[in-house]
Amino acid sequence: MKLINFTAAGHTRAGAIVDNKVIDLNYAYQAQLKAEGKYRYEAIAKAYVPNNTDELYQGGKESLKLAESAVDFILANPESFDKKVVYNLDDVKVEAPVQRPGKIICVGHNYREHILEMGREIPSNPVIFAKFANTILGPEDAIPHYPISDQLDYEAEFTFVVGKQARNVSEEDALDYVAGYTITNDVTYRDIQRRTLQWLQGKTVEGSAPMGPYLVTADEIPNPSGLDVVLKVNGEVRQKTNTANLVFTVQKLVAFLSNLMTLEPGDVVLTGTPGGVGVAMNPPQFLKDGDVVRIEIDQIGALENKVKATEVVATV
Amino acid sequence: MKLINFTAAGHTRAGAIVDNKVIDLNYAYQAQLKAEGKYRYEAIAKAYVPNNTDELYQGGKESLKLAESAVDFILANPESFDKKVVYNLDDVKVEAPVQRPGKIICVGHNYREHILEMGREIPSNPVIFAKFANTILGPEDAIPHYPISDQLDYEAEFTFVVGKQARNVSEEDALDYVAGYTITNDVTYRDIQRRTLQWLQGKTVEGSAPMGPYLVTADEIPNPSGLDVVLKVNGEVRQKTNTANLVFTVQKLVAFLSNLMTLEPGDVVLTGTPGGVGVAMNPPQFLKDGDVVRIEIDQIGALENKVKATEVVATV
Repeated sequence: MKLINFTAAGHTRAGAIVDNKVIDLNYAYQAQLKAEGKYRYEAIAKAYVPNNTDELYQGGKESLKLAESAVDFILANPESFDKKVVYNLDDVKVEAPVQRPGKIICVGHNYREHILEMGREIPSNPVIFAKFANTILGPEDAIPHYPISDQLDYEAEFTFVVGKQARNVSEEDALDYVAGYTITNDVTYRDIQRRTLQWLQGKTVEGSAPMGPYLVTADEIPNPSGLDVVLKVNGEVRQKTNTANLVFTVQKLVAFLSNLMTLEPGDVVLTGTPGGVGVAMNPPQFLKDGDVVRIEIDQIGALENKVKATEVVATV
Repeated sequence: MKLINFTAAGHTRAGAIVDNKVIDLNYAYQAQLKAEGKYRYEAIAKAYVPNNTDELYQGGKESLKLAESAVDFILANPESFDKKVVYNLDDVKVEAPVQRPGKIICVGHNYREHILEMGREIPSNPVIFAKFANTILGPEDAIPHYPISDQLDYEAEFTFVVGKQARNVSEEDALDYVAGYTITNDVTYRDIQRRTLQWLQGKTVEGSAPMGPYLVTADEIPNPSGLDVVLKVNGEVRQKTNTANLVFTVQKLVAFLSNLMTLEPGDVVLTGTPGGVGVAMNPPQFLKDGDVVRIEIDQIGALENKVKATEVVATV
């Protein structure tokens, strides 16, 4: 299933993309339950297939399967419900497949070929750092470039979302704890990242994590290795790798992170970026107003966002 | 007002400590509204004085004032409501004054005398790093020491909680955006912190941010400078400073951080720790099972937690 949140008529709700249609998952399940004669269809649907993905992930595989069967039901019975369940993809705004995750964990220096070309040794532990949820943007949003730095840079990141509470999980069991996969651009203000030892301040600037175009549920990608990753700026290839080159695989990351902390449904892990970032070019090439950054990953799709010069407006 | 969350009979709710009593804020406000003849007292109380602090902070100063007046009401009219509103402090478990913050932002190298004694220069920008909400413990919880490292260390941190959405706020206005002040022990697995360039993995281990004993609302501490901070391990003074020594004051931090990102009500900022951490002693002294760590800050109180050796139990 291709999971999204979408906005229509001012409401943001969880949906699935099927061809060029968007199915409202909560209403689809309500429709199915009502057709089955469940008087409390609204409460049951709220419990099992809630109307936003952050709660939906909490239901684990059970909720994802119910959502998927509800999609099948509504496609077979499109006129069965009194609320609008099916939209044309062009008529909605697609939002990030995660809205307010408790954690966004990023991995640094994780592509083998890039580590070796930099003359570094393969590390024995992953480098991890954070972004906060204020960074999240959807696939149709512009990347704001705030006038706090001239060094706005991109980082293509193969991303997974946690689908089940995980503590001290083994590598063997790790994939059971993954809801699915998506793409994130780990947008970075490079000079702000580097002006102190800790990267956080250059990494968690408002709107610096465009994500999408949707979450592909884990059942559709049984093996997250072997996926090509390409990033282009205005059509020019800048980053190119394959998830087979990850030093710390999805399985290793789930095991490593869950040994330190409890991972919760909806937590997001960005698995790292390969070589080719703008700051490493000669001369360095940073993003500017109007640039289009496109990230393509096999079996997932393409995340494309435009950069937009944006003033910081103060709160009142 | 001294704000807490507290657990009684299995329910965790927002409260205020007055002498040796705990007042349930939501029920106190319900009682007051009902006495005023408001038929919809339950819904109005839920909107303005919700039953957990994370939502209460969203109501800003308006909600804090309503909560305070409700405390006065219930103390004057203790028998006016059919639900239990007043508890003896000894009969409840006090929890952290913030439960699931969207951000926990920590500041490194922020005490002037410590920077100078280390031979470093006063930095022009604060070092910031993250913890996630999985770290939060209350003042009555034990600090778990997981067998992932022998180097468990403490850090006394004067802490503020954001009380109003803040973006690009000036230093002059900054204190208007603070809900109040508390104490956090930024418990750190020192070797894990240092095994990579980024500190996150040694900072966000489960249960590594005991916080409390309560939040003192900002109206009671008009000037957050000039407060003595002392940390003791088993009664021995290890850290000692004063918030007047902060290089980046509360005001500067609100301005700095809100220029990068939107701060939300309930976000937590740990302002940094002075010299005297265990790893810097000669020889280094790390925390072990049974040790008692106590942090005292003027006008706030004392946060005291015991260290407890704890196995990691895997999720099923």
